[in-house]
Amino acid sequence: MRNRFDRQLEQLNNELINMGSLIEEAIEMAITALMKQDAKKAKEIVDFDEEIDEKEREIESLCLKLLLQQQPVAKDLRQISAALKMITDMERIGDHAADISEMTILMAGTPYIRNIEHLQTMAKEAMVMLVKSIEAYVEKDLAKAEKVIESDDVIDDLFDQIKAELIDAIHQNPENGEQAADLLMVSKYLERIGDHATNIAEWVIFSITGNHPG
Amino acid sequence: MRNRFDRQLEQLNNELINMGSLIEEAIEMAITALMKQDAKKAKEIVDFDEEIDEKEREIESLCLKLLLQQQPVAKDLRQISAALKMITDMERIGDHAADISEMTILMAGTPYIRNIEHLQTMAKEAMVMLVKSIEAYVEKDLAKAEKVIESDDVIDDLFDQIKAELIDAIHQNPENGEQAADLLMVSKYLERIGDHATNIAEWVIFSITGNHPG
Repeated sequence: MRNRFDRQLEQLNNELINMGSLIEEAIEMAITALMKQDAKKAKEIVDFDEEIDEKEREIESLCLKLLLQQQPVAKDLRQISAALKMITDMERIGDHAADISEMTILMAGTPYIRNIEHLQTMAKEAMVMLVKSIEAYVEKDLAKAEKVIESDDVIDDLFDQIKAELIDAIHQNPENGEQAADLLMVSKYLERIGDHATNIAEWVIFSITGNHPG
Repeated sequence: MRNRFDRQLEQLNNELINMGSLIEEAIEMAITALMKQDAKKAKEIVDFDEEIDEKEREIESLCLKLLLQQQPVAKDLRQISAALKMITDMERIGDHAADISEMTILMAGTPYIRNIEHLQTMAKEAMVMLVKSIEAYVEKDLAKAEKVIESDDVIDDLFDQIKAELIDAIHQNPENGEQAADLLMVSKYLERIGDHATNIAEWVIFSITGNHPG
């Protein structure tokens, strides 16, 4: 029984790594489409989000099956319930990649009013947070999870900086307003992605220690 | 068998009406907290969103049970699969009510830079769209669903107007920028709520006619 359960837990880990890769890919594609103003690619990401939603359902079913059939306790129970929570945050990250892509479609016709490399930096930071948080879960690495939570400050700082720049762009020329407002939304979505990666890391800490730091 | 199935379909309708009321309440509470700058109430809405998520899971289970046990065809199949799609949009509306409340918490310390009644109007329009779309589903009323889709223009126009006003506020005084950016985000979330109500109405049309107008 225990061996079978161990195999199922291993399957759960593999599925989570799998979903993590899908989401990383979604963020990567979303930011590439944004940088290149590629509306066609952006539309694909909106569809890709459905694949992520499906993966969430799959993992959710697996978790519920494990909870019902195995009646796990202590650490096993924490691991499965943390997984259940983590996939909700992962799915939300997928939504935000789609949200960003919708803004990309809106802005596709007009050249950017300014260099948007800060947004790319935010996206890269968010991807690192996501990858590390899933690694921390699989490796049961408390320090790694804590580091993810700390690094959310970097994203928050970038967000504040981008917001200030966009406000300044509008102040200088209200004709920039429309696009600045759209770019502001993009940076907000990236900031939310960082929040969700932080949530994931908090659930990892819960699964290891039994205490949720949130 | 058919009688039992009819009862189950009726239960599904009641659950959908129920979830619709929860979401209407969430929007109403979110906009009240926003208008009154009530951070305490806003925090409650973030928690209330979990209740909505749970309701979604419940209805989802019911739909899956009906699909598996009853193997419905034609109109029944369309009704159940439309319900499955509708609850995803409803849940997203709940998320946005929570998103708005997070912005309310952020802005709670500072008086508003301008009258924000337009946002209240947007929220009211969105609530009407939501209620009507669910009525259209339950009453199988095609015309009502089509009307919901048309009325999304009202919300989109309000959004454009609010966006222009906020851009103007930033242009006049960049010190308004921080809050104007937050209010812009709120109006974007309300606009997205309108989009999701439109999606719901489109699924209602699918459930009645078999054609999805999206």
